[in-house]
Amino acid sequence: MIIIIQCRDRVGLVSAISGALSKAGLNIINMDEYVDKAENRFFVRLNVEQPDGTTLHEDDLKPLLPDDAVVTINPSPEKKIVVMVTKEYHCLADILVRNYFKTLGATVQAVIGNHNVLQDICQRFGVPFHYISHEQESKAHFEDAIVDTINNYNPDYVVLAKFMRILSPEFVARFPMRVINIHHSFLPAFIGANPYRQAYNRGVKIIGATAHFVTNDLDEGPIISQQTIHVNHSYTAQDMMKAGREVETSVLANALQLVLHDRVFVYKNKTVVFE
Amino acid sequence: MIIIIQCRDRVGLVSAISGALSKAGLNIINMDEYVDKAENRFFVRLNVEQPDGTTLHEDDLKPLLPDDAVVTINPSPEKKIVVMVTKEYHCLADILVRNYFKTLGATVQAVIGNHNVLQDICQRFGVPFHYISHEQESKAHFEDAIVDTINNYNPDYVVLAKFMRILSPEFVARFPMRVINIHHSFLPAFIGANPYRQAYNRGVKIIGATAHFVTNDLDEGPIISQQTIHVNHSYTAQDMMKAGREVETSVLANALQLVLHDRVFVYKNKTVVFE
Amino acid sequence: MIIIIQCRDRVGLVSAISGALSKAGLNIINMDEYVDKAENRFFVRLNVEQPDGTTLHEDDLKPLLPDDAVVTINPSPEKKIVVMVTKEYHCLADILVRNYFKTLGATVQAVIGNHNVLQDICQRFGVPFHYISHEQESKAHFEDAIVDTINNYNPDYVVLAKFMRILSPEFVARFPMRVINIHHSFLPAFIGANPYRQAYNRGVKIIGATAHFVTNDLDEGPIISQQTIHVNHSYTAQDMMKAGREVETSVLANALQLVLHDRVFVYKNKTVVFE
Amino acid sequence: MIIIIQCRDRVGLVSAISGALSKAGLNIINMDEYVDKAENRFFVRLNVEQPDGTTLHEDDLKPLLPDDAVVTINPSPEKKIVVMVTKEYHCLADILVRNYFKTLGATVQAVIGNHNVLQDICQRFGVPFHYISHEQESKAHFEDAIVDTINNYNPDYVVLAKFMRILSPEFVARFPMRVINIHHSFLPAFIGANPYRQAYNRGVKIIGATAHFVTNDLDEGPIISQQTIHVNHSYTAQDMMKAGREVETSVLANALQLVLHDRVFVYKNKTVVFE
Repeated sequence: MIIIIQCRDRVGLVSAISGALSKAGLNIINMDEYVDKAENRFFVRLNVEQPDGTTLHEDDLKPLLPDDAVVTINPSPEKKIVVMVTKEYHCLADILVRNYFKTLGATVQAVIGNHNVLQDICQRFGVPFHYISHEQESKAHFEDAIVDTINNYNPDYVVLAKFMRILSPEFVARFPMRVINIHHSFLPAFIGANPYRQAYNRGVKIIGATAHFVTNDLDEGPIISQQTIHVNHSYTAQDMMKAGREVETSVLANALQLVLHDRVFVYKNKTVVFE
Repeated sequence: MIIIIQCRDRVGLVSAISGALSKAGLNIINMDEYVDKAENRFFVRLNVEQPDGTTLHEDDLKPLLPDDAVVTINPSPEKKIVVMVTKEYHCLADILVRNYFKTLGATVQAVIGNHNVLQDICQRFGVPFHYISHEQESKAHFEDAIVDTINNYNPDYVVLAKFMRILSPEFVARFPMRVINIHHSFLPAFIGANPYRQAYNRGVKIIGATAHFVTNDLDEGPIISQQTIHVNHSYTAQDMMKAGREVETSVLANALQLVLHDRVFVYKNKTVVFE
Repeated sequence: MIIIIQCRDRVGLVSAISGALSKAGLNIINMDEYVDKAENRFFVRLNVEQPDGTTLHEDDLKPLLPDDAVVTINPSPEKKIVVMVTKEYHCLADILVRNYFKTLGATVQAVIGNHNVLQDICQRFGVPFHYISHEQESKAHFEDAIVDTINNYNPDYVVLAKFMRILSPEFVARFPMRVINIHHSFLPAFIGANPYRQAYNRGVKIIGATAHFVTNDLDEGPIISQQTIHVNHSYTAQDMMKAGREVETSVLANALQLVLHDRVFVYKNKTVVFE
Repeated sequence: MIIIIQCRDRVGLVSAISGALSKAGLNIINMDEYVDKAENRFFVRLNVEQPDGTTLHEDDLKPLLPDDAVVTINPSPEKKIVVMVTKEYHCLADILVRNYFKTLGATVQAVIGNHNVLQDICQRFGVPFHYISHEQESKAHFEDAIVDTINNYNPDYVVLAKFMRILSPEFVARFPMRVINIHHSFLPAFIGANPYRQAYNRGVKIIGATAHFVTNDLDEGPIISQQTIHVNHSYTAQDMMKAGREVETSVLANALQLVLHDRVFVYKNKTVVFE
């Protein structure tokens, strides 16, 4: 049994929660707890052994906690996601493979592409592909078509796996803290377009990638995971892009593992990640 | 207030502990908890906010726990260590610098060397240096002299900072789980002498270092910390040794931070490390 | 134009080679050169700009070099490989994806499995799968069937992508320095079976993977690439295996990039890798 | 013998250089060569074995090269440096230790501090310390005093080892490409003051450090070396600063090794680093 709680901090929260578990005959196997003192917020994730016949409901815990408490018991173990892509295959293929072998922690319901070059790989894995071109359409129409398609599936998360169009605040507002993006730089460096070209021009010795939730401000949402790799003077912007693909794939895979296994809390513009 | 507990696992331990804290008016800021299911052992480290006038004693907790429980409240914040060296300076110098600037988490009481080449650096930092040569002495006499010197200081830990003589089981038995060694390979690869020569001969692409507690079996004690770095074909054994110094220094520094801040539990031949 | 040379070292080799290139009107863009002084061996890899109308043949260089020189000009840019697997999908799927998107640097001609669980993924990518069971067959018959299948394709390399049967010296002798294996530990630690179980029992704080050429001695062949990641006390052997999959996939992909782009020289039991 | 050349690229440069070496009876042990195609610039660093009685002068090579060629033969093996600090000890102490044990690749002639808290550690190592306060002085007077002190020593490089005052363009112009700074972030993220505070506010999952040459534009000079480490939600800005010290020390040490062993070329706003 997984129990997740976020609320205002106050003395005695762990005692109240663990007391309730003990009374219900439940044994804590693993407990991650964190208090952000500056914000006075309390976060806990419990992995609990549940003998036959024992039960626990959110209502058993809520009266013991501050009134702003968000309590989740046994979050859905099999999430549903819709993936959005443009032309680059590496993140999508990694997701499709894990989906096929049931190690993703989610089911890929569909893929939406603003180009159709990745249609074939989706078909090979039996995953519906929706080609929604951004050409010959107003941005509003384009996004409406995407929203309609997503809503048909009602996914838990929308994953931007190298989707290269900027989404409007209206779009993002439809799926608050449910859109995950992979950005091809170690944010906050190289915000915006062409980060590898920017990195090349600056002569950096490391490049990286960042997975984050999407908010209204471009590339400014809460960061979930980041990694970097070393490069040197011999790397062209093209070489950096190629090397960067490996990091992007790895960072997005890691971020999805964390989010889909309910290890990520969001508050303000930050995340608490219990790895 | 730091509280550390290791004991047999059973249902209700977190509840019992946090209940006692709550009753005493203490608020948990951070709690690291781990149960080794295979061994049925429970480990917890609590960082607790202690308002004026509140107290907690080991005897307040012990009756709530299994009878094998080891409870430590507010372990000594300033440990004492004796360092043993041979000729290589890098780990010792790092320890002396941190000691001098009071960021080591311990006081270096003395340094013991089986050569005297590191005497001058110790004197510059005002740390007593004891030159105990292993030549013209039986091993037993040599070790007796070291033991006597150590016992004069009664340190919490003995740190082998590139001490290149093998210590007898009798010596180790005097300071059980209190001797920390830096081994210049990523154990269990390259046990024993000349690991960089072994690594060179094998043509490895990574080298590393391991900090561990010393037990009777050479290089077989519980591991505290490990790191690796990349090397390539152009590295001679000498180059590996040089590059390895940076890793050795870093791994030992990290292991000492963890041990000296009471973040390391030992059981069987393993460690639980709450970073 | 790529030029690769390995030979005995002597004074004037770079001068002789670059003189011949200059005379032929060829400009060196990039040159990797290494001399193993201990072995007196010379290795060079040149990336050369070739204006229209200029040519260079191995016979233009050979008279300028020691008589043991191995000279390769423009090695086949598109290698052919056969992949061997058992049940684990992660390395194979990564190879199939790169093959499909033409970023592998080779064509996967076929996959051979001693179980048939990975047949479906191969079929989805249109790659022939040969199921050759090791059961109800002598080892000799089993290996003969594999050799026959491989020989039908005449590949440049055979890639063991988590093939979990030990191959006989006779098998290995058929494809000298043409069989590449991914071993699930950072060699030389944890040779042989069940390295993650061994790593768990030893309580290590890092795990890793090694890609190497296969020779008669199990897990003792020349190492191409190695990586490690950090683990901690909370990892079961199963958790290590799961985390290890990501490293195995990454290390094998990296090793294949290096070998398939002719960046790896083998001599004695070592490799020279020009990254 | 070390030979370093930077010039405009053209066909035949390697041939011309290696021909001259061969004629002089010199054998190339190691050769690092790079051409920046976009800028048409050629860089080479040669490590050459020099039998008794052989010689080579810059004038032997210059006629063979484009007229803009900068040729250096046997750059001074023991550079001289002046270090500038404020209050933080970690980078300075690392430099003093390596200086004392003669593994820095340079001699520390003096340390200049705008505070005097690091005077004692310098005295312990017998290195002159100049206390030049920035208070009660105009910036021009302050910098003039520093320039005068530096000029008394005539160092090869000035190393800003956590010197926390911004230097004027006039100051920097006095020592072009001879001032090396350690910046406490992975540039170009978090330019300017308080990068750890900025990193904390942004909620990043990695922090890092950058060693670079100082130019007129703050934190915009050519990058020599960069590293990052992982952090998580539990790090305060203070914790990041503490963890960052280890990276800063390591990056600056690495950059100094590279620069002091003549492995770094500067051109435009970039570096070529032959590691």
